[in-house]
Amino acid sequence: MEKIVNLAKRRGFTFQSSEIYGGLNSCWDYGPLGVELKRNVKNAWWRDMVQGRDDIVGIDCSILMHPRVWEASGHLAGFTDPLIDCRVCKGRFRADHIADAQCPLKPSKAPGQHDKCDLTEARNFNLMFKTFMGPVEESASVVYLRPETAQGIFVNFKNVLTTARTKIPFGIAQTGKSFRNEITPGNFLFRTREFEQMEMEFFVKPGDDDRWFDYWVNARLEWYVGLGIRRDKLRLRPHAADELAHYAKGCSDVEYEFPIGWSELEGIANRTDFDLKAHSEHSGKDLSFFDEETRERFVPYVIEPAAGADRATLAFLVDAYDEDVVDGEARTVLRLHPQLAPIKAAVFPLLRKEGQPEKAEKIYSALRPHFAVDYDQAGAIGRRYRRQDEIGTPFGITVDHQTMTDDTVTLRERDSMQQTRLPIDRLIGELAQRLATPWSR
Amino acid sequence: MEKIVNLAKRRGFTFQSSEIYGGLNSCWDYGPLGVELKRNVKNAWWRDMVQGRDDIVGIDCSILMHPRVWEASGHLAGFTDPLIDCRVCKGRFRADHIADAQCPLKPSKAPGQHDKCDLTEARNFNLMFKTFMGPVEESASVVYLRPETAQGIFVNFKNVLTTARTKIPFGIAQTGKSFRNEITPGNFLFRTREFEQMEMEFFVKPGDDDRWFDYWVNARLEWYVGLGIRRDKLRLRPHAADELAHYAKGCSDVEYEFPIGWSELEGIANRTDFDLKAHSEHSGKDLSFFDEETRERFVPYVIEPAAGADRATLAFLVDAYDEDVVDGEARTVLRLHPQLAPIKAAVFPLLRKEGQPEKAEKIYSALRPHFAVDYDQAGAIGRRYRRQDEIGTPFGITVDHQTMTDDTVTLRERDSMQQTRLPIDRLIGELAQRLATPWSR
Repeated sequence: MEKIVNLAKRRGFTFQSSEIYGGLNSCWDYGPLGVELKRNVKNAWWRDMVQGRDDIVGIDCSILMHPRVWEASGHLAGFTDPLIDCRVCKGRFRADHIADAQCPLKPSKAPGQHDKCDLTEARNFNLMFKTFMGPVEESASVVYLRPETAQGIFVNFKNVLTTARTKIPFGIAQTGKSFRNEITPGNFLFRTREFEQMEMEFFVKPGDDDRWFDYWVNARLEWYVGLGIRRDKLRLRPHAADELAHYAKGCSDVEYEFPIGWSELEGIANRTDFDLKAHSEHSGKDLSFFDEETRERFVPYVIEPAAGADRATLAFLVDAYDEDVVDGEARTVLRLHPQLAPIKAAVFPLLRKEGQPEKAEKIYSALRPHFAVDYDQAGAIGRRYRRQDEIGTPFGITVDHQTMTDDTVTLRERDSMQQTRLPIDRLIGELAQRLATPWSR
Repeated sequence: MEKIVNLAKRRGFTFQSSEIYGGLNSCWDYGPLGVELKRNVKNAWWRDMVQGRDDIVGIDCSILMHPRVWEASGHLAGFTDPLIDCRVCKGRFRADHIADAQCPLKPSKAPGQHDKCDLTEARNFNLMFKTFMGPVEESASVVYLRPETAQGIFVNFKNVLTTARTKIPFGIAQTGKSFRNEITPGNFLFRTREFEQMEMEFFVKPGDDDRWFDYWVNARLEWYVGLGIRRDKLRLRPHAADELAHYAKGCSDVEYEFPIGWSELEGIANRTDFDLKAHSEHSGKDLSFFDEETRERFVPYVIEPAAGADRATLAFLVDAYDEDVVDGEARTVLRLHPQLAPIKAAVFPLLRKEGQPEKAEKIYSALRPHFAVDYDQAGAIGRRYRRQDEIGTPFGITVDHQTMTDDTVTLRERDSMQQTRLPIDRLIGELAQRLATPWSR
């Protein structure tokens, strides 16, 4: 993981938030390459989950919501972690993790050794960030930063139903920031207090829910494979009955083998009719669906694939990271799916003479309206290839002596390092075709 | 404005946040059409400000930042509004707006009549939303929701400079949510407490700043014209010396003539070296730039075009809204730029027989991978055209009796309502070409 964090920092994928002030614990900023990578991840999700489907529409809700939303959803009462303090070492531990926690006063001791500690009883801390709307801090004006995007979808269920002329089964999808005041955030982008979700709530007829649950569990795992994650690094982990949230009938995690071990990448849950019924009761608004064809009225069940944009970005980075040896030299390469790569192609003049830089810049300008491209003329050509390999650029285009005589260039492929010679005027078509070709490692 | 709000609600552009709980004051959710419209606005900005340029890179910073950022930027001390309370009517007014404010107890009286009121002295209220990071509410853990995205750019200036190998002049761009605890939000999407910014900080050599300021003022006005806003509804308003923020050398607003009058759509400011110097002093980190060519070291000046994604979306909606009469019937039409339209084309079978629906669905499926398209077979063809006109769909494709014999369809243009007959297999090319054609009203 350290290698990934270093590369991410060195090449401008991620920086620690407010770094010049010593950083803000577990908050990260995306740099010039990171913002494009994350955009590509989110756009791929939106394309596959919304724009490419007839049965799912999008929505974008505000982060600040009416506090009664969290009363109805159960977050106000139940979205808590049990916390234990030590009066001696001032350590603060999650009660359910204390057996693995290190005493700050005894860092040399094995985790779980708290014999010198004076521990408090466990107290429940709500994980929602609280703030105050309006200029005065009265309890009436307390609002919360949403801890999940899902509830914005549930409270808009009827609005979407009436305006988008949708029929069960259908889904509502949303990407956006959520906030959880985690006691123990960490592991780089894996668990952060501010994070971006990609959630979809799929509304089905009760009785059809098991079938749709299976469908989405499978579809979501395949989504990662389709974007280049190695299949043997992914697995499904169905939750045992005693792990399930009280409202869930079933849940399965898509897990990825991160450097920290197998960990949740995405959860697919059968939330039943819990949320719609809860909001219906609390708001007094009817959130049932009337099926015109069968003349039946019912409260739909909900299948929810909930992914994290930051966690997915991390998985794509980790899975892409590779080191190999080229001509006796160590090479770091990000084997990113071409669709996710921040830069699709880099244009190089082999030499800084003979008009090669001018020619290369002309090619660069011609490609720019079509693809995210880079131009680099600094240093030996081998070093320039390495710089692009390291950030996952799938194609390198080199202008050389021959280019100046016959208007052909070499097209180098990042992974195989194979070079093809082709005319400049075929470059756009060739790149477009290669970028559209299904790809896997 | 009311017509726009109604249309937006009826067709699923926007809903009031948490509506089933009575709504949350001035917070809005984007529905299925609104989310696509706003995405198109943001993507156009990103394309024109980042991806289409050599001299600007993107970034994406966290909303929660280290509190010292706001100490250095001056927000903690100075980002306030003066507030006056009335002990009788319990009204709360911005001191600088009290002359226009209505007394809640005397709604029939003219604004500014507070003779029965018992007003407090003006007190300063900070407009930043405050929250607490970590499980316990101690002053040490107070953090703020960012009131602007700009500061995330300034504190990352050095990080971007070193990793992206950029040279002055260059810019860093960011889109994302900001939060301001406005005392008097309102006017639909125009002033909301949670809003999305599109900000770019352009770093230049002191002395070059006036030239770049003029460049960006002009470029930003033209951006709206290029996306279809009528030129006579836009104007520039340079700030008078006494309006300028204390750090600004110059500022000019791009104003749009909203139904509420001429109002700020975007501000372009010359922020000088204020921010970089402030962060340099507060953090102890050197934020100057060394010019390799001239061997000079300096703290760059900053030109900032700061736009609002929600406000821009509102302007595009307002400007597009039109009513005309077609065949003696009133028609509502959104004359949105085709690039911004949530749906690019709708496919209709003229009749629900003769295999026309099947043919139309086949065309719909063929277009879907290339464009955002809709399919509609419900009701009279005239009504279906109206439904699409009202949401700004620029093209309608109709399958009719003739289609079944010669595989041609009619392509109808939203604004001129002109219909062209063309072969089905030329549809993709024709739509692509028309969507790429420069467009204005």
